[in-house]
Amino acid sequence: MTKPFVFEKPLGMRDILPTDVERKEEVLLRIQKVIKRWGYERIETPTLEFYDTVGGVSATLEQKLFKLLDRSGRSLVLRPDMTTPIARVVGSLLKEQAFPLRLAYQGNVFRAQENEAGKNAEFPEVGVELIGEVAPDADAEVLVLAIESLRAAGVEKFQIAIGHVGFLHSLLALYFEDGEQQELKRHLYQKNYVGFQQLVVDSALAEGDKEKVLALLKLQGGAEILETLKQLELPNPLKKSIYELEELWAVLKLYGITEHILLDLSLLKEMDYYTGILFEGYAHSLGFPICDGGRYDQLLEGFGRPAPAIGFSLKLDRVIEVVGSSLTQKGCKEKPIRILYGEAERRKAIELAARHRAEGRIVKLHFKQNGAFEKDERLAEEIIDLRKGGA
Amino acid sequence: MTKPFVFEKPLGMRDILPTDVERKEEVLLRIQKVIKRWGYERIETPTLEFYDTVGGVSATLEQKLFKLLDRSGRSLVLRPDMTTPIARVVGSLLKEQAFPLRLAYQGNVFRAQENEAGKNAEFPEVGVELIGEVAPDADAEVLVLAIESLRAAGVEKFQIAIGHVGFLHSLLALYFEDGEQQELKRHLYQKNYVGFQQLVVDSALAEGDKEKVLALLKLQGGAEILETLKQLELPNPLKKSIYELEELWAVLKLYGITEHILLDLSLLKEMDYYTGILFEGYAHSLGFPICDGGRYDQLLEGFGRPAPAIGFSLKLDRVIEVVGSSLTQKGCKEKPIRILYGEAERRKAIELAARHRAEGRIVKLHFKQNGAFEKDERLAEEIIDLRKGGA
Repeated sequence: MTKPFVFEKPLGMRDILPTDVERKEEVLLRIQKVIKRWGYERIETPTLEFYDTVGGVSATLEQKLFKLLDRSGRSLVLRPDMTTPIARVVGSLLKEQAFPLRLAYQGNVFRAQENEAGKNAEFPEVGVELIGEVAPDADAEVLVLAIESLRAAGVEKFQIAIGHVGFLHSLLALYFEDGEQQELKRHLYQKNYVGFQQLVVDSALAEGDKEKVLALLKLQGGAEILETLKQLELPNPLKKSIYELEELWAVLKLYGITEHILLDLSLLKEMDYYTGILFEGYAHSLGFPICDGGRYDQLLEGFGRPAPAIGFSLKLDRVIEVVGSSLTQKGCKEKPIRILYGEAERRKAIELAARHRAEGRIVKLHFKQNGAFEKDERLAEEIIDLRKGGA
Repeated sequence: MTKPFVFEKPLGMRDILPTDVERKEEVLLRIQKVIKRWGYERIETPTLEFYDTVGGVSATLEQKLFKLLDRSGRSLVLRPDMTTPIARVVGSLLKEQAFPLRLAYQGNVFRAQENEAGKNAEFPEVGVELIGEVAPDADAEVLVLAIESLRAAGVEKFQIAIGHVGFLHSLLALYFEDGEQQELKRHLYQKNYVGFQQLVVDSALAEGDKEKVLALLKLQGGAEILETLKQLELPNPLKKSIYELEELWAVLKLYGITEHILLDLSLLKEMDYYTGILFEGYAHSLGFPICDGGRYDQLLEGFGRPAPAIGFSLKLDRVIEVVGSSLTQKGCKEKPIRILYGEAERRKAIELAARHRAEGRIVKLHFKQNGAFEKDERLAEEIIDLRKGGA
């Protein structure tokens, strides 16, 4: 029994046509070149992982996982992120290799979408993980490499917001119960600032404290906001986070890239493995982040190899959306050649094609015994008609 | 509740470490270059498809499909092949584009494995589809491009066996009932020649016919076997297939690549969309096919755009296994540089790293306030220690 063919694709799945594949390749090539020069080496991990291994990394992702069962009834997932699989590799295949480890990846990750709002369910990411380093130098290296990668890809105007999970967690823990904290964090990573504000206002907190919490999380800017924070009398865990941001800022200044940086203490991401700084990059022309990342000093412990770590990931689709048509086409710039031939010219056509290809040209052989060739006007091609009376 | 972390990967899933990723990239680059020059343009299709769209392409694959349900209860599969998704695109997104269409792809396909025999469940394929052409020139182009791609990848000794589904189907239909035909075909694509022979011997066929069937399917070789076949009195459908193979052979001779070709009329593949010639390439050092392909003139009809078509796919993992360590490492041939520095040398280190990277070198920055650096002897690195009293 033949089932009817279906032309559709599953929700959030896409086909990518040649022009866009070429753009993607070009952007990838540029980014890979930068990442490689910073000493990062690429690894690949499988599309499918055990749910128990990577599925549990973020409770907030649970509903977005593509899940299936293997033959023995164990839950599998299509990987929702790359950082956890890489942590698994660091704790297993790479467990003899000395820290710091500099690893890079590129590949698709998967998040099931809930409606037809046009959000992708499969999207390509390129990124790095720097594992085993804790100095502000490591944080700075990953941030600068993200910035250099964006620049290499051709993104000109962008800004990276940097927050600090430690600061945020300590601040909320200071004033709220566990349940409230979870609610507040959910509002933050969903960027529902109105909801956040409402929750704070409705809470049992003293008026002065409400204002303080709201004020602290509205702070955005450069090194000056760190100055402001230092003048407040904040408890030690908060002071420590501020000190970390100050140190980081100093190194970023040496790299000369603070023009791209915006400190934003309300920043939170849906992955809950972050422990220190975390960040999110925006191009001026786009409403969605083009990159993100952060420090995750506890994830590796779960894979038997405790180590501090930080990484970034670039959302390749969005980067391409930003640089789009500004990309020069790589490779062959000359027009493709189409050679028309009949049976009598077959040998000649084959030889001519081989000669042009050896010179780097694109050649399409077109067997057409006789009759005019219907030229596709959209294609800029050089036509060579070997047939007698052809052309 | 935290679930215990699991270090394992699902059955047949692999991690690929840097050296092997680099080999894969190098091989891909070489193959892409060839494929591009023949006028093929790359498209990408999603990892997940509706079962109804691509799942039904081969009854023999059914048990190897990774299946899952989407939110609305529809069956999805991880794509088991690339040809059917591309046919879907040709019938939808590309339906306005004139034939012949030359499309290329690279990506992973999935086949669930049943035991721990070490077979991969996710594997990378590179290939092309030539759609809308039926002349022997099209068959030859795809075969020659497969050969050129293997050569470009560095595979030196290999042979491509060519069979003809039309010949095989007609022959079996001549002598056997439907059920028997299915059984016989299953033995052939499983390469169970003993089982095939037994079935023929045990059948109700006249002795002379049994011998004829077995003899015909044992024929292997060059153009001479076509001569042998022509001297037999075969019914028309069989004659037609032989004539097609003769025409193809003549074009392959013009390309000068018949040394790589072996005609083998017993060849059958598990994908049952093939209608004409089909083929399978073997490297001398490996027991598994490194490429396969064939003509599928009826698949496109199911996607609303009837057209003849032929394609090949290279099994990238196996190609890499064959060329393996013979690959020269691409890109930076010089040793990576590791710059050791403390806080006082930070600015200098950052500047020096930038300078070396601009020259194309790989530079790893290593913040270590003081103390000796534990050199990893496996890494050939150039060490620059900027610290006073360092090194």
